[in-house]
Amino acid sequence: MREQLLAAEKVKAIEWRDGALHLLDQRVLPFEETWLSYASADAVAEAIRSMVVRGAPAIGIAAAYAIVLALRARLAAGGDWRLALEADFKRLADSRPTAVNLFWALNRMRERLDRLKDGDDPLAVLEAEAVGIHQSDREANLTMAQLGVDLIRKHQGNLQNLLTHCNAGALATGGFGTALGVIRAAHLEGLVERVYADETRPWLQGSRLTAWELAGDGIPVTVNADSAAAHLMKTRGITWVVVGADRIAANGDVANKIGTYQLAVSAMHHGVRFMVVAPSSTIDMALGSGEDIPIEERGGDELLTLNGVPVAGGVEALNPVFDVTPADLIDFLVTEKGVVERPDLAKMTQLMCRKRLH
Amino acid sequence: MREQLLAAEKVKAIEWRDGALHLLDQRVLPFEETWLSYASADAVAEAIRSMVVRGAPAIGIAAAYAIVLALRARLAAGGDWRLALEADFKRLADSRPTAVNLFWALNRMRERLDRLKDGDDPLAVLEAEAVGIHQSDREANLTMAQLGVDLIRKHQGNLQNLLTHCNAGALATGGFGTALGVIRAAHLEGLVERVYADETRPWLQGSRLTAWELAGDGIPVTVNADSAAAHLMKTRGITWVVVGADRIAANGDVANKIGTYQLAVSAMHHGVRFMVVAPSSTIDMALGSGEDIPIEERGGDELLTLNGVPVAGGVEALNPVFDVTPADLIDFLVTEKGVVERPDLAKMTQLMCRKRLH
Repeated sequence: MREQLLAAEKVKAIEWRDGALHLLDQRVLPFEETWLSYASADAVAEAIRSMVVRGAPAIGIAAAYAIVLALRARLAAGGDWRLALEADFKRLADSRPTAVNLFWALNRMRERLDRLKDGDDPLAVLEAEAVGIHQSDREANLTMAQLGVDLIRKHQGNLQNLLTHCNAGALATGGFGTALGVIRAAHLEGLVERVYADETRPWLQGSRLTAWELAGDGIPVTVNADSAAAHLMKTRGITWVVVGADRIAANGDVANKIGTYQLAVSAMHHGVRFMVVAPSSTIDMALGSGEDIPIEERGGDELLTLNGVPVAGGVEALNPVFDVTPADLIDFLVTEKGVVERPDLAKMTQLMCRKRLH
Repeated sequence: MREQLLAAEKVKAIEWRDGALHLLDQRVLPFEETWLSYASADAVAEAIRSMVVRGAPAIGIAAAYAIVLALRARLAAGGDWRLALEADFKRLADSRPTAVNLFWALNRMRERLDRLKDGDDPLAVLEAEAVGIHQSDREANLTMAQLGVDLIRKHQGNLQNLLTHCNAGALATGGFGTALGVIRAAHLEGLVERVYADETRPWLQGSRLTAWELAGDGIPVTVNADSAAAHLMKTRGITWVVVGADRIAANGDVANKIGTYQLAVSAMHHGVRFMVVAPSSTIDMALGSGEDIPIEERGGDELLTLNGVPVAGGVEALNPVFDVTPADLIDFLVTEKGVVERPDLAKMTQLMCRKRLH
């Protein structure tokens, strides 16, 4: 299975090459496949803010590489490079507030920095750490895909109609995806009849990115309006909702793209299973519940314009881009450390204490 | 109150003037206020199909006037004008499938035709009937607004946050609206803190039409992504969802714009009251349940393009534009004949047998 899954890794969105970070510009997909190159932490922070790169694991990886770029510049400038680097950590941490993978990756880079020994080459050590973060996310995707598909096979061994929201695929991670990793694996095992992809307003991650990824893999995919999800659950025999996550609190509450909560409520109403797939770097045991997760609000213009063209007149728009799904609406949380069924604090604590599976 | 409500009638979308039907083109609002004139039934059928005019009561009214245009042409052509007129009835009936007001209005016009006496001027009689349909829809709006605001006042006498979906306002009716009529009346009574308007994909009736209508009346309105509704119910103290309807079955099941069902499920989950406002012309006692209501599917290009510009790549899209909300998710159905609380077949039958209030 691992070899089959590795062969399914077709799309990449992040490359570290020739001492620079290269990002596939997700703002212009699927119409243009444009790679942008970044040589400074400031530029990467702006790329995260403006969503050239998006998806919780992907922005963590990008931030880790940005610290390498920052360190190189600070070392070249001389002086107290450790102090100077703090500004870079801060600027990156300020780029987006909700996905905890960003802070997790920055913390890992800082901890590695703190463990430097005399004689270590700081740049080589931190570059290896960033590459390690990238690689382990890719491995986590593979592990989660296998755990997730085991759940689907166990509950329904035949062709399934799945529904997903936003994009939790190759474009959002270091590998072939979290939710879309499970869906890819399910397709490889012949378990997928069709994937319904919520278009995911306002940024259209579903119709622009998820549909492009899945169609590229030959997986039957249909785009629908976000508001059609409950109707499709009632009329199209959907058995699973499979989504990613941006931050998971210690009690198992999940912050993810706006609309996930509404989907979870609809799934419960219809008896549709609800699976969240996210690496353990998305889990924030410091937050007791989802109420503590900061929810990013972006500009209302994202709702009122499209490609810079106004779609609605001079009115006020509220654009919270994440919401919180309470743990009691979640059937399965799939991480690379294992599966948690109906998450709660005790199970989350046990999960996070366990030895990593790989 | 009636005078205040009449004074709130600012926007009109349908005018019958100089023997022609004039429609405010809802495809280009709010950027352009363009009136188009129609002198033939075929052209009106196309205007209904292409959504120059939309909203269940409004398309019924437009179809009634279209029969007047058709009759004039058939009389002028000579020959068997009654037989020839059948083709016009059919063409109009085929324009859109879900809103029953279209068929109701056509039936009323046909019944009036069948009651013509010798010496009657068919054109004058049918023109008066169409004007009567238009006028009584306007009156129904006024009655429903008062019944609806009574419910809000009775349950919460202070400032409320309301949520609506699609556009059930002046642009959708012959008066100042069904759901938006209730909201306008509630605003006049000082009961509205803020109205949250779902943008309503794919056609953006919420952000283009509802927001424009309400902002024009000075009612505080905020546009949100459809998928944010449950999050707003949880975080913004919404107490009522108020929506219109396109067809209501004998058991009280309601077909309305796609997303209404999902909203009703979310409202139930949050203990938010759910009010459907529609004239009795929207009630189809011939259909036992919502499962019998034909649900229009429009082209996937409505999801994948905007103003003709592609927003997503060459993928398949499913675009059901209505869904069915089961009666047991509806707290109140407000019609001009009275209010039905938690509708069912017995209550709907009683409502439809009652003498009209006006």
